[in-house]
Amino acid sequence: MTTITKAFFESLDAADPLAPLRGQFDLGDTLYFNGNSLGPPPRSARDRLRQVVESQWRAGLARGWDMHDWLHLPERVGDRIARLIGAAPGEVVAGDSTSVCLFKLAAAALQSTERAQVVTDEANFPTDLYVLSGLREITGRRIEVLRRPVDRIAASVSGQTALVTLTHVNFKTSRMHDMPALTAAAHDHGALILWDLSHSVGAVPLALNACGADLAVGCTYKFLNGGPGAPAFSFVAQRHHQRLLPMLRGWMGHASPFQFSGEYTSASDSRRYAVGTPEVLALSSVDASLEVFDGIDMTVVREKSVRMSGLLMELIEHECGEFGMEIATPTDPAQRGSHVAVRHPEACTIMQALIAENIIGDFRTPDLMRFAIAPLYLRYADLLELVAALRKTVETRPWESDVFRRRATVT
Amino acid sequence: MTTITKAFFESLDAADPLAPLRGQFDLGDTLYFNGNSLGPPPRSARDRLRQVVESQWRAGLARGWDMHDWLHLPERVGDRIARLIGAAPGEVVAGDSTSVCLFKLAAAALQSTERAQVVTDEANFPTDLYVLSGLREITGRRIEVLRRPVDRIAASVSGQTALVTLTHVNFKTSRMHDMPALTAAAHDHGALILWDLSHSVGAVPLALNACGADLAVGCTYKFLNGGPGAPAFSFVAQRHHQRLLPMLRGWMGHASPFQFSGEYTSASDSRRYAVGTPEVLALSSVDASLEVFDGIDMTVVREKSVRMSGLLMELIEHECGEFGMEIATPTDPAQRGSHVAVRHPEACTIMQALIAENIIGDFRTPDLMRFAIAPLYLRYADLLELVAALRKTVETRPWESDVFRRRATVT
Repeated sequence: MTTITKAFFESLDAADPLAPLRGQFDLGDTLYFNGNSLGPPPRSARDRLRQVVESQWRAGLARGWDMHDWLHLPERVGDRIARLIGAAPGEVVAGDSTSVCLFKLAAAALQSTERAQVVTDEANFPTDLYVLSGLREITGRRIEVLRRPVDRIAASVSGQTALVTLTHVNFKTSRMHDMPALTAAAHDHGALILWDLSHSVGAVPLALNACGADLAVGCTYKFLNGGPGAPAFSFVAQRHHQRLLPMLRGWMGHASPFQFSGEYTSASDSRRYAVGTPEVLALSSVDASLEVFDGIDMTVVREKSVRMSGLLMELIEHECGEFGMEIATPTDPAQRGSHVAVRHPEACTIMQALIAENIIGDFRTPDLMRFAIAPLYLRYADLLELVAALRKTVETRPWESDVFRRRATVT
Repeated sequence: MTTITKAFFESLDAADPLAPLRGQFDLGDTLYFNGNSLGPPPRSARDRLRQVVESQWRAGLARGWDMHDWLHLPERVGDRIARLIGAAPGEVVAGDSTSVCLFKLAAAALQSTERAQVVTDEANFPTDLYVLSGLREITGRRIEVLRRPVDRIAASVSGQTALVTLTHVNFKTSRMHDMPALTAAAHDHGALILWDLSHSVGAVPLALNACGADLAVGCTYKFLNGGPGAPAFSFVAQRHHQRLLPMLRGWMGHASPFQFSGEYTSASDSRRYAVGTPEVLALSSVDASLEVFDGIDMTVVREKSVRMSGLLMELIEHECGEFGMEIATPTDPAQRGSHVAVRHPEACTIMQALIAENIIGDFRTPDLMRFAIAPLYLRYADLLELVAALRKTVETRPWESDVFRRRATVT
């Protein structure tokens, strides 16, 4: 089977319209299945950072604010992201961490209504839940947070719900929510919905405006390859700009920051959701990383992603099922994001052994391996290599050696 | 006079113990008096950024979190800053913008008490005031914000005051508050005090713990030279770590982020004031920039700063007073930070003309020129050149030409 399979996978690579993009990354021999944790640097980002440091910061000094229009990086980067998430220009502003962006938008949403209930997914990414716990305390409004199992979210929304907040693709299992249906469910009850796109943007086509989504945030250091700890982004649908007032207010969200007025007058567009001085180095890296997506059709990216994740699940079941590996990701492509999660009691050790072989995925406590499918730089043939290594590793039972110990890594 | 003066200024440079540090910056012929807006890149920062992009991000990929301990950059950078502000290791955490840090600490302080009054400086930097306006709305607690003239702040603190929040050195005039006296005034009435050190850190010695300060934030892209839009820092005195709970909560402030628990359990140390994923590129730049301060005695920095700003004020009065230039900065060194502000009705045009000559200060609406004294890279002789150019510029009355138009720059 291996020979036939190899020819088949190579034929898929030969026919892959995205194959030339791999050249923009400098991955060498590394098999990188961790793009949902940290994307690799495209050459454009490395070149841009050099240029921003040397030509803009060093040579331009503070003149860079004018000469290189650093001031509008949050909107420029936001507009590039807008195309990838089905938003309009002017609806997305980049800056701050995903957690801070979640706080900003959830706070603005809760402030706009008398309702004081939030519905969320009990399996949501922890930071999304922590943000709500802080908001509950600071508002002093006895906000009720309903954490519901994935299949009971729609049914939990009611006329008391102010906000539904969900991560589109689950960080552990890769399970993907039905965005149009859940957005409609929120709206049916007069609630707003806030989507965390951290594990979807750059890998899954998104159509926020087409399904009427209200708010969204997302991460730029995963499938967008913006750099470790790169700034996040905030989307607020145009129709809400007047109504949703920022609670986290800084001078960059003021209508006229350089008037240095002591009175707060919010900018009237999405810039009101900006807060502090733009993160010039980090936003420049994100901006350049997004150039890789220029001219790319996200439906082609998705097609490759679904095909690859489907093949990977089949291969793992076929080659490693007998060793107790279980797929934790939905087999229905409509319910699946862009990584494959695999359970095994010795997941942590197996992952360390793979990493030692330069095959990089990651581990999530207690028993999950995650393999990200990043269609911009992965080859179908990489899947075969991964699964061969996975089988070989599990066969050698590395957890019986004491070379490997537990380590933590970052999503 | 010029000849005598020149020899005198050159003798000051010859005797300056900080003179060798200029070699760590690559300023060429630029006379850079805008270090309170954006510091120039030290070579250490440029080298580090190259290294972080090429060796850590590109070659290490997500392994960087372990291999390069990216996860603890907020504390590592915080500990470097701690020395410069008179804080203990473990009391400072770097990350997020100054505005976001202000929100974090002011929110935690207000949440810890029934009192609902904040006393601040009516001339405070706008973002500091905007943060309070947002907090007032989100808490719904009818928080009263008293904005007082600089000389009435101490007298305005009372048993109703929860928090006094002040920027140590005023961004326009360079007027410096008496930190020990105002901290004592706050404590006398049982209030907490939050210092914004954006315009002091790196230029003025600070002794937060010696005067018992409770909270502080500061900017790293001014006198610390961390890079445009670099992350800020938060200081919380050790004695408050247990008591002041973060309201802006993210996974990086959790006691065990990699357990991915849905329940929020705050870290017990200052790490609880961290929120999202550390800004690796930007924090690495700050970390390297701070190396320039290693082994530097801040009292020596301050001595040079005070001497330079004093000389600059004298020179400007002597050479430019007749052209309507007025010093807006206190002549008493104890009340002066590390820049000199000069009023002139045509300040905007004069500054543009200077910048065209590669002499860079900045303009603040409506009529203020600011000249920062950054003792790490400025030479006494630069002051003479600046004032000669200033006089020549004002003599030629550039505002009667239409070459120059208004522009905005960033503090």
